[in-house]
Amino acid sequence: MAKSQYEYVRKFEQDDALLPLTWVVIRVDGRGFSGFVARHEYAKPVDTRGAAVMDAAAKAVMEDMGDLVLAYGHSDEFSFVLPPSSNVYKRRASKLVSTVVSLFTGAFIAAWPAAFGPDVPLMEMPVFDGRTVVLPTRAVLRDYLSWRQVDCHINNLFNTGFWALVGDGDDPAVANKLLCDANSAQKNEILFSRFGINYNNEPELNRKGSIWIRDLEVTDYVDARGHAGFRVSRKLVNVNTDLIGDAFWTSAYPHLLADVK
Amino acid sequence: MAKSQYEYVRKFEQDDALLPLTWVVIRVDGRGFSGFVARHEYAKPVDTRGAAVMDAAAKAVMEDMGDLVLAYGHSDEFSFVLPPSSNVYKRRASKLVSTVVSLFTGAFIAAWPAAFGPDVPLMEMPVFDGRTVVLPTRAVLRDYLSWRQVDCHINNLFNTGFWALVGDGDDPAVANKLLCDANSAQKNEILFSRFGINYNNEPELNRKGSIWIRDLEVTDYVDARGHAGFRVSRKLVNVNTDLIGDAFWTSAYPHLLADVK
Amino acid sequence: MAKSQYEYVRKFEQDDALLPLTWVVIRVDGRGFSGFVARHEYAKPVDTRGAAVMDAAAKAVMEDMGDLVLAYGHSDEFSFVLPPSSNVYKRRASKLVSTVVSLFTGAFIAAWPAAFGPDVPLMEMPVFDGRTVVLPTRAVLRDYLSWRQVDCHINNLFNTGFWALVGDGDDPAVANKLLCDANSAQKNEILFSRFGINYNNEPELNRKGSIWIRDLEVTDYVDARGHAGFRVSRKLVNVNTDLIGDAFWTSAYPHLLADVK
Amino acid sequence: MAKSQYEYVRKFEQDDALLPLTWVVIRVDGRGFSGFVARHEYAKPVDTRGAAVMDAAAKAVMEDMGDLVLAYGHSDEFSFVLPPSSNVYKRRASKLVSTVVSLFTGAFIAAWPAAFGPDVPLMEMPVFDGRTVVLPTRAVLRDYLSWRQVDCHINNLFNTGFWALVGDGDDPAVANKLLCDANSAQKNEILFSRFGINYNNEPELNRKGSIWIRDLEVTDYVDARGHAGFRVSRKLVNVNTDLIGDAFWTSAYPHLLADVK
Repeated sequence: MAKSQYEYVRKFEQDDALLPLTWVVIRVDGRGFSGFVARHEYAKPVDTRGAAVMDAAAKAVMEDMGDLVLAYGHSDEFSFVLPPSSNVYKRRASKLVSTVVSLFTGAFIAAWPAAFGPDVPLMEMPVFDGRTVVLPTRAVLRDYLSWRQVDCHINNLFNTGFWALVGDGDDPAVANKLLCDANSAQKNEILFSRFGINYNNEPELNRKGSIWIRDLEVTDYVDARGHAGFRVSRKLVNVNTDLIGDAFWTSAYPHLLADVK
Repeated sequence: MAKSQYEYVRKFEQDDALLPLTWVVIRVDGRGFSGFVARHEYAKPVDTRGAAVMDAAAKAVMEDMGDLVLAYGHSDEFSFVLPPSSNVYKRRASKLVSTVVSLFTGAFIAAWPAAFGPDVPLMEMPVFDGRTVVLPTRAVLRDYLSWRQVDCHINNLFNTGFWALVGDGDDPAVANKLLCDANSAQKNEILFSRFGINYNNEPELNRKGSIWIRDLEVTDYVDARGHAGFRVSRKLVNVNTDLIGDAFWTSAYPHLLADVK
Repeated sequence: MAKSQYEYVRKFEQDDALLPLTWVVIRVDGRGFSGFVARHEYAKPVDTRGAAVMDAAAKAVMEDMGDLVLAYGHSDEFSFVLPPSSNVYKRRASKLVSTVVSLFTGAFIAAWPAAFGPDVPLMEMPVFDGRTVVLPTRAVLRDYLSWRQVDCHINNLFNTGFWALVGDGDDPAVANKLLCDANSAQKNEILFSRFGINYNNEPELNRKGSIWIRDLEVTDYVDARGHAGFRVSRKLVNVNTDLIGDAFWTSAYPHLLADVK
Repeated sequence: MAKSQYEYVRKFEQDDALLPLTWVVIRVDGRGFSGFVARHEYAKPVDTRGAAVMDAAAKAVMEDMGDLVLAYGHSDEFSFVLPPSSNVYKRRASKLVSTVVSLFTGAFIAAWPAAFGPDVPLMEMPVFDGRTVVLPTRAVLRDYLSWRQVDCHINNLFNTGFWALVGDGDDPAVANKLLCDANSAQKNEILFSRFGINYNNEPELNRKGSIWIRDLEVTDYVDARGHAGFRVSRKLVNVNTDLIGDAFWTSAYPHLLADVK
């Protein structure tokens, strides 16, 4: 096609390729989600229907972008991990973040009816923003994910206490003050002494958040000539477990951090 | 809330604030839209239902982000213009591009049923990506928008010819070759001699694309004491017109390029 | 020449091209210059030999890089202005800043003996660092330069007072406190009442700093056949004058801000 | 001090901090050094006086910036290595590159007289430019340095052959063509058969380039009470050796790549 005299403006689009051979996290966060959650009357402290919609959205992103090795999320956020070897979209930050956010938004909307049922229609479109984080080593990547899971723990412990207190008739401002002044042990004690809640028995989804990984699946087979063999494939799996300790990375899923260089 | 030992990873999120006091364009593009369009059997060369959905999505972005002064789009793309004075989202590239793409995706999905009716449900979620372009002066901004409108013209002239030829029974490869070898005048001539189509009478939407602006609206009123007065407000308006020449900028809507500094 | 398996590391050098069609300032600052100045016993408040060395270094940079349109400096700093049309070194930030700093450092050393004479040899090598500043419009460029000249004024007024007081036997800490607590008018008053110094009669070099520009020079000539004509050439000129007001830009040197687009 | 209305221009200086916890290389290259070398009649293929000046300049940079762990150079270039743990100059690219280039330029000039003697004064100031390269892992850092040492080898083998041929009366263009068409083994053969030169016996400086490191030095002592002890200190050492193989990193100087995280 003919080129116009205006083509030169292409050069004003800046190169935003992320450093090669690094781990890249693309994090999606809900924008103004407290309003969205209130309008759809989410259950407290964690709405399992809302969590299912977030999980479905994250799964759709993992299915679409085969290079992603892991997704971790809780509340209204999800972090997607791209390994150092990936060159998808030439590692361009704006392309990565916009594509992930668009996929996530669309899949969230598509997943809504199955999770919430016909009585709770989607009353407004959810909005997400995104960012990229570049992490040079496995150690820093693990620290990033630990940071998000610690955040999940802190928020969920607080929210579990807050909604128990408010549900019990406490004034929200008083409940907030009480919990802000309490350390973790004291928050646990409040839950146990007033409500008989052992926080460690709360659902793992609430306490650990949601992890999507591609697990290795070994399938045995016997071929036409009667010879036994096996195939290794990858399958998207959702788990709610600790990823701060070593067990997740070194025993359970050692292939996740294996990558070139 | 307590800080964890992992908080340090925050500093791996790089500062992507765009240069202050510049014009910023956020452009949204459909990802793999030829497949999407084929699956939903869009009319050719331009599907007015599809264009209405794109327009509704762009309008929703304009309504949400009050700092945007103009949006221009055609086919599966829309460019949103932020003026130099805007400091929305601290001008962070990833925040801007991801929010616009998320709003656009959600609004596209929301607008589908009204435009396509119950017989054409949305069979897959649309996906968009985005990018930011930083333009230092009004002159370069106008060149950017002219570039996109020239692109609209070139594509639409080609597509009008192509689908007329193919609708008339021509082999698509032959039609493609014929048009690729023809200049603009020859493409016009093919349209006129074979189909009696005067290209300049084709709909302005097809030839010029779609522009959203905030037009100034003056309302006269008479107050309680009988004094006459007027109010100036801004109202989103959609036009399909030329923005390459000076008339659009200097006569019709001179306020669009007025901005601080 | 043969390529090695290690060539791939080239891609770790990031693209740092500055936005096209913008004004670029490369500012050079002395590193740890208070020590350097003390060791070479500079006169106070402004050492004309030291200023001459800085001027010679700036002139050498202007001579080397023909695209630069202006340099402004005072104390241990100099700002070099590249116009929007320039594409020197492909506008790469690291290349621009390192070349200017290297030229400046070498020329400073070369100019030392002529300015300080045989009795004051250079006892240590001066060190400079640099940075780039991208300015989208003429108005912002002028504000940048005004910022530096206001800084020159503030510092010189303070230093003129400080060294007069200390030279008169005041304790440095007391002198510092006195001036820090005084506004401009009060600093002027201290200078006048105690030392009979009218600050406005201080040398323009001290009060305004140093400006290098390429002035237009018109040369009349008569050719071999007796026809009169003229040539316009550009010549590096040093002035010590106000660049905050309009006169410098609109009357004296209107060609400086003229540039493409 | 008072702030002026122009202070806002500070925000046009963009954040160029390099990614934390990565290896950073600052590479200095001579600008137009073939002219500089010709004017000072450097010996061929390697001028030991010129190499001594480059070494002295690199040593001065290493002495000034204590965070640097290694410098590698040959011909008119030197690469300085900053470890992941360093936060010097807040890792700002322009500050790092400009300071290193300024130090290097000044030290080069200072070292000239001792290396070249009174008969060969410096006739023009050398000019260097610089760049930063961000390398996420030890493996990529080693590949970067191997890349530069392979480059040293390729260039020196070529130059050794070229200047032997030209010194023997060959036409430069013919010599150039002959060597460009030859692979490494053939270049070695030309050197041996025509000049009796065994390339592997050429000076290690020429073949391997120059490496500055901080070696660990253990000093035994006996204290006032007769107890034996030892101290570990670091001392700048220059070596001309292979850094592509493992021996340099794992046996000789294993502390060089040890760093936090």
